[in-house]
Amino acid sequence: MSVKSLIEKYDLENLTIATLASHSSLQIVHGAKKEGFKTALITLHDREHFYRNFENLIDHLIVVNSWNEICTEKVEKKLESLNSIFVPHGSLVEYVGIKCAESFKIPYFGTRKMFRIEADQYKKMSLLYQAGIPIPKEYSLEDDIEKPVIVKLPGAKGGKGYFIATSKKDIKEKLSDLKKSGIIDDEKNVIIQEYVIGTPAYFHYFYSPIKNRIEILGADIRYESNIDGLKRLPSEFGITNFIEPSFVVVGNLPMVLRESLLPKVLDYGERFVKASKTEAQPGIIGPFSIETIIRDDLEIIAFEFSGRIVAGTNLYISGSPYSWLYFNEEMSMGRRIAREIKMAKENNSLELVLT
Amino acid sequence: MSVKSLIEKYDLENLTIATLASHSSLQIVHGAKKEGFKTALITLHDREHFYRNFENLIDHLIVVNSWNEICTEKVEKKLESLNSIFVPHGSLVEYVGIKCAESFKIPYFGTRKMFRIEADQYKKMSLLYQAGIPIPKEYSLEDDIEKPVIVKLPGAKGGKGYFIATSKKDIKEKLSDLKKSGIIDDEKNVIIQEYVIGTPAYFHYFYSPIKNRIEILGADIRYESNIDGLKRLPSEFGITNFIEPSFVVVGNLPMVLRESLLPKVLDYGERFVKASKTEAQPGIIGPFSIETIIRDDLEIIAFEFSGRIVAGTNLYISGSPYSWLYFNEEMSMGRRIAREIKMAKENNSLELVLT
Amino acid sequence: MSVKSLIEKYDLENLTIATLASHSSLQIVHGAKKEGFKTALITLHDREHFYRNFENLIDHLIVVNSWNEICTEKVEKKLESLNSIFVPHGSLVEYVGIKCAESFKIPYFGTRKMFRIEADQYKKMSLLYQAGIPIPKEYSLEDDIEKPVIVKLPGAKGGKGYFIATSKKDIKEKLSDLKKSGIIDDEKNVIIQEYVIGTPAYFHYFYSPIKNRIEILGADIRYESNIDGLKRLPSEFGITNFIEPSFVVVGNLPMVLRESLLPKVLDYGERFVKASKTEAQPGIIGPFSIETIIRDDLEIIAFEFSGRIVAGTNLYISGSPYSWLYFNEEMSMGRRIAREIKMAKENNSLELVLT
Repeated sequence: MSVKSLIEKYDLENLTIATLASHSSLQIVHGAKKEGFKTALITLHDREHFYRNFENLIDHLIVVNSWNEICTEKVEKKLESLNSIFVPHGSLVEYVGIKCAESFKIPYFGTRKMFRIEADQYKKMSLLYQAGIPIPKEYSLEDDIEKPVIVKLPGAKGGKGYFIATSKKDIKEKLSDLKKSGIIDDEKNVIIQEYVIGTPAYFHYFYSPIKNRIEILGADIRYESNIDGLKRLPSEFGITNFIEPSFVVVGNLPMVLRESLLPKVLDYGERFVKASKTEAQPGIIGPFSIETIIRDDLEIIAFEFSGRIVAGTNLYISGSPYSWLYFNEEMSMGRRIAREIKMAKENNSLELVLT
Repeated sequence: MSVKSLIEKYDLENLTIATLASHSSLQIVHGAKKEGFKTALITLHDREHFYRNFENLIDHLIVVNSWNEICTEKVEKKLESLNSIFVPHGSLVEYVGIKCAESFKIPYFGTRKMFRIEADQYKKMSLLYQAGIPIPKEYSLEDDIEKPVIVKLPGAKGGKGYFIATSKKDIKEKLSDLKKSGIIDDEKNVIIQEYVIGTPAYFHYFYSPIKNRIEILGADIRYESNIDGLKRLPSEFGITNFIEPSFVVVGNLPMVLRESLLPKVLDYGERFVKASKTEAQPGIIGPFSIETIIRDDLEIIAFEFSGRIVAGTNLYISGSPYSWLYFNEEMSMGRRIAREIKMAKENNSLELVLT
Repeated sequence: MSVKSLIEKYDLENLTIATLASHSSLQIVHGAKKEGFKTALITLHDREHFYRNFENLIDHLIVVNSWNEICTEKVEKKLESLNSIFVPHGSLVEYVGIKCAESFKIPYFGTRKMFRIEADQYKKMSLLYQAGIPIPKEYSLEDDIEKPVIVKLPGAKGGKGYFIATSKKDIKEKLSDLKKSGIIDDEKNVIIQEYVIGTPAYFHYFYSPIKNRIEILGADIRYESNIDGLKRLPSEFGITNFIEPSFVVVGNLPMVLRESLLPKVLDYGERFVKASKTEAQPGIIGPFSIETIIRDDLEIIAFEFSGRIVAGTNLYISGSPYSWLYFNEEMSMGRRIAREIKMAKENNSLELVLT
């Protein structure tokens, strides 16, 4: 079923913005209400109690037994009856699987074709490379390695499935351990990247097909367990009692960038949008993020991207230092999404922002 | 004198919100003014000049020679004449001593019985345990210790009086040094806790007896000297020129949590409120905080709590990413306190929020 | 040409606030628009595209081939015709050179005489010392050094040109290397300061000559590459594969201070303003910053200052936790500058805030 035919059946005066109850869903429904939409969240039973606290923001709380029930006719019919536009966030594919995500009948605000690219580390890095955005050097298992590298296991997600190594021997030993413990099957599809020395910085972009404008709506740093605690253990203990560092995202910290870096940050966003138009038609719609290390020579190296809303935007529910430069009102990423849908609807251009 | 009898004498149309000029007092008076209350701050002479800069927020600046003058008849009469409700913050017991705090004649917005629990590390951990909230493993001085532990001296406060150790021998040596230098009398009442490996996170809750609702109003990370500076010294120097780490709170840093952790965070708050109703009647009123480490398996371990407003809330004087989900206006913890008092007064239920 | 004679020619009802397109310029023009001023930014060609995204904030985007073109008659005439008041920020002297900055014909909101002091590390530290603000111990190249020190090369700027050392031998070796590689000519003018152990904190002040009031409008921590990334590398790698730490500012992180430190922070600001009146007539006007380390005994040691707006204020474009205590509206440092100019104009006192 095409988006067009689905939208034709919708009552456009009564659209609902829907998403899964996780990741950035409170921000998304908060923003949707600000723009006058109805909202729906799909939740598991064990989160229902929590989300009931936000009935001011949630018109329909749809409780399911498992996340991929969203792909059943029952839930799809329910969402369709609410004239739903679905906002895919970073937990969608993780929760429902890529097949359900790709075949889901409800129109997405965002780019359906991006799921498959994001599921494949090689395709992801390739898109950044196609865009002309600097990325870390990649190594094969046969290369000599003399600097710290980060080794990403297949399906690495949310900070899990990474390790740092400093030599070919080190990598082989660690991979061998992971095979023995059954965590990976083989070394195939392991990505070995230069560990870029510098400071992490994640940029929140919004591409508006309606305004044909790329906005920088914020920046953040991930707060990761255990690494952001380990660094507070005196190095004495680091040596004598070594604990393997891990990078599980547990939150986000706000930051602003040196203003003279912003032209480059915008340029990366523009390059990304342009490349996405050929690599994932019709190209990026709405929020995306480029995840970088800023080196001390002020070069910015991208090691990841997200083709949808990232959780770091949860910091800026009443606006970010950047969103205030564009808008004279509180503008979160969640609200920006809703604003774009509203503008698209008013311009009879919904098909430009839905896939 | 009971709160009831005191309140009966008050002119409820002319209540004053009062506190000590420290900790979170500017936030408290800022919030009180937003809700239409008169305000009073009690200050020492050496801070008077500073607080005079905020005469827009402070109706009565009461200057005392020592903090525990608040328990003299003179100051109590003054506060009574202003129809004062006193907000106890984290510096109250530290400044005036527990006897004055407990016997203070002015009604508290908060739980008077919590002072004694908070003064005793064992009772504190016990309340968390009673609530069913995961806490660090505790050790005795006789236990074999093979992992990093944190050793808390009696009366440890604001980040002082802690040290990290990695073995029984290490602990005994350090305690022996502290005895020699007269800092502690004996090892009794020293608490030895597992040093939980993960990232610190402090959650700001508000329990409303009027709405019977627990709100998550924010989260922060403490900014501690010297540890948050030490970690920036290359490890080279850490080894060759070791400086003992210290954990003195000098400020607070904002953060947001991964949304999928929030149901657990709310659950901890609910457990805490419930347990407090039996352990510190009538149970928690208004702001409290649970202070945790988030491990890389996303388990959250509580190592402390505060039964009142914490300084981390000073970050959010115009609202936090969470408060905006509940309220469509700028809502600091200070303002939330004042709002609760206003609602209680309007419902003729002040006795539900005062002790 | 005196400010007075220039201002006499101005149409005071049509003032423009102008600055260089960098550093904190978006904040400055955002604040200027909020207060009803026209705005002008001077930019190089390669940034024009970026700044065109903010035409809502920028009335005149003046494109130059090199920054010091601002000192040509053409640009000065243009700015004069717009009745411009120029806000000098941290990039001004770096970009145009001190001669152009000092002789620039357009009136500054700020203290022209401060440029020369800021260009000279010795004069800077001397001003702090004159003010009675604690500063780090200084060493000469002949002193015995037994603790970490920070060695600042002449013209150190934005985090470049510093290194940490732990002994006289260490310093001499590193300086010798720098001479060999032609980075410095000789050791003259190298500053060797005690590396104060504690946590960094940068305070944002505003001195209002119109209200004769010093406001604390915020605080931040610098986010520096590579040091803030290095600290996340397990110490294992720090040892076996040592990477020289660097301190290049790439952004800023928000913080709030322990409230009991604020009286001292205000006192430092007051001392600084007073000392500036004799050392850099007519003394500081508007924004300045004192850059400190807070030790674990809560003593605050200043190691730098900025006599103008610092980039950390970019965090607070919709107000900081502190600005909300003074103002019942969104008040960035940029807007505070514009507000002061507006008040000065309305009081016929522009000569009090311009040099």
